[in-house]
Amino acid sequence: MRDYYMEKALCFREEDLKQYVARFFEHFLVPSADAAIAADVIIQADLRGIASHGISKLYQYYGNRLEAGRINPRSELKILKETRNTVSFDGGNGIGHVLASRAMEACIQKAKEYSVGIGTVCNSNHFGIAGYYAMMAVEHNLIGGCFTNSEVLVAPTFGKARVLGTNPISLAVPALNRPSFVLDMATSIKPLGQVLLHEVQGKAIPLGWGMDSRGDPTTVPGDVRNDGALLPLGGSEQMSGYKGYGLALLVEILSGVLSGSGLGTAVGSPLSTGGPPANVGHFFIAIDIESFRPFSDFVKDLEALLEQIVLSAKVAGESRIYVHGEKEYEQTLEYRRAGIPILAPVVEELRTRGRTINVPFDIEPVHVL
Amino acid sequence: MRDYYMEKALCFREEDLKQYVARFFEHFLVPSADAAIAADVIIQADLRGIASHGISKLYQYYGNRLEAGRINPRSELKILKETRNTVSFDGGNGIGHVLASRAMEACIQKAKEYSVGIGTVCNSNHFGIAGYYAMMAVEHNLIGGCFTNSEVLVAPTFGKARVLGTNPISLAVPALNRPSFVLDMATSIKPLGQVLLHEVQGKAIPLGWGMDSRGDPTTVPGDVRNDGALLPLGGSEQMSGYKGYGLALLVEILSGVLSGSGLGTAVGSPLSTGGPPANVGHFFIAIDIESFRPFSDFVKDLEALLEQIVLSAKVAGESRIYVHGEKEYEQTLEYRRAGIPILAPVVEELRTRGRTINVPFDIEPVHVL
Repeated sequence: MRDYYMEKALCFREEDLKQYVARFFEHFLVPSADAAIAADVIIQADLRGIASHGISKLYQYYGNRLEAGRINPRSELKILKETRNTVSFDGGNGIGHVLASRAMEACIQKAKEYSVGIGTVCNSNHFGIAGYYAMMAVEHNLIGGCFTNSEVLVAPTFGKARVLGTNPISLAVPALNRPSFVLDMATSIKPLGQVLLHEVQGKAIPLGWGMDSRGDPTTVPGDVRNDGALLPLGGSEQMSGYKGYGLALLVEILSGVLSGSGLGTAVGSPLSTGGPPANVGHFFIAIDIESFRPFSDFVKDLEALLEQIVLSAKVAGESRIYVHGEKEYEQTLEYRRAGIPILAPVVEELRTRGRTINVPFDIEPVHVL
Repeated sequence: MRDYYMEKALCFREEDLKQYVARFFEHFLVPSADAAIAADVIIQADLRGIASHGISKLYQYYGNRLEAGRINPRSELKILKETRNTVSFDGGNGIGHVLASRAMEACIQKAKEYSVGIGTVCNSNHFGIAGYYAMMAVEHNLIGGCFTNSEVLVAPTFGKARVLGTNPISLAVPALNRPSFVLDMATSIKPLGQVLLHEVQGKAIPLGWGMDSRGDPTTVPGDVRNDGALLPLGGSEQMSGYKGYGLALLVEILSGVLSGSGLGTAVGSPLSTGGPPANVGHFFIAIDIESFRPFSDFVKDLEALLEQIVLSAKVAGESRIYVHGEKEYEQTLEYRRAGIPILAPVVEELRTRGRTINVPFDIEPVHVL
């Protein structure tokens, strides 16, 4: 993602951004502890180079909906059913980041005590990057997983209507001498944000990412945005797009059906400021490694496997094979050192709208690109 | 798959084939109960239209290795570590189908009693179709999942060497008024079997399925077979092939690293009749739906979701949208009625080699295509 943000950006300190985002949520009557969680998740996205889920969405996904009374600022997880290893929560239309973070904490506690914890949340909202919650488990030397459903954007194989979300899959696995393995992927070829980015930049999208409203492949971003659809990972049937469609459906079942949330077209858009609650559903899992084998043996084998992969032969013109989470880890180190770049138009929006709601975005960039 | 097998095939009754395969395993000193399990898994593959994992592999994957003493005919799961919800097994180089089936049974028992069961097996062998074990959970109204690593065939993004297997993901979810959802997919675009099938038929493969030994895309099946590699789901980086690569790695971590089995290039080929044991690793999970919400509510929502998808708008020229497992379910019904087609050359091999080992393949086809 990073190169898109180098056009004209202002770089800010992580702490300054987090404090601002926390103040922003507090303005909408979100309790301080909850505001700090939401701020941490959102700025973590920017830090990891996933700006599409970062501060650029502060008003679009959260501020506008909070202002319109579409999100409950008091995030309370109500237990619908609980066993020693499982818990099913109702999120009461609260802040997605807060509900997800607390639900994952419950899973981590269960996994630490009883080897495995699985939790679901219904009646939630957009929660930012799925990887954040999976990574929470890694801090405890556990394997963490997180899925969520989302507003429909993806067509199934042989279909042209939007019936599934970009439903991400995240799994995080702890390592010691290298960055943890962190898979955090939409089950569509690309998220809609990448299509919109091409549109803003006046560029065509590669053939295969999306279809127009007639179901034909298109290179025009606007065709996808207007009643078109994204394609599932794999793309066409010949390239096994039914597998990406199956993964999206797997996520919909575990995070949507198992939680009892909205399903398919019944999941609300985070952009909408009217209508019923978004009713997003999440699924979390934490697995205790020590219940299977000694942690040190596990990590030794994991690192040997990853070394085997990154040291394997490259195709011409490529000098490095990446493990999932490595780029984001390095991005984080760089942004912590040099500041997190925020695109100029995003900073402008934060300043203008911040004045309107009297939460001025008055923090100083550490430098300007 | 079915169309490939219509060239010249003989159709047999399910029971006849199962009994033959059981006798075959018994010949190699596999106990009767175990032989019946292996036979059930193998013929289930043929019934579901996945002939690449069915009776056509009887000698290639199992007979040759049993004859060479490379697989232990006495399949015993040794518990390495166990908690109420988890169990880590050593498979003692036994028959993959038997070890996997017993390990999944253990997970099912745990899930029925304590909501979740997760099991791993190291030191195993090729176990046929992953979907079989995931589907075992569905019989108990549980959600079932199964992963396995396998011999390396897939190159990572930016790489050209085989460092990961086609590592399948399977998840099965029970429905009542329609076939269960059964996702059972290799994490590569296509399995090697599809490439070899094109080679036998003298056909080119679509560009994108595989690369040659230099890492260049190829349409020549032999290029992939000879030191080339398969591409992960998604394909090129532009089409998000790093996601398929990430899924293959996720499977390798859960079924390989967590179980303590062979990893990457250390996993043996099922075709090899020499060298060390294959040391394949598996991962199983069973989840109790009732621990989250009433089963009847779950099924009602699942079926409504699936209806929403299959009834959605189709692209021109397509009349049906499938849910994963539906085609295989219908295939099974048809083959139970009309017999299971086995390609003539496969029948010929079974007859010739059956005579050699004195387990004659003397069953009569119900008809010939």
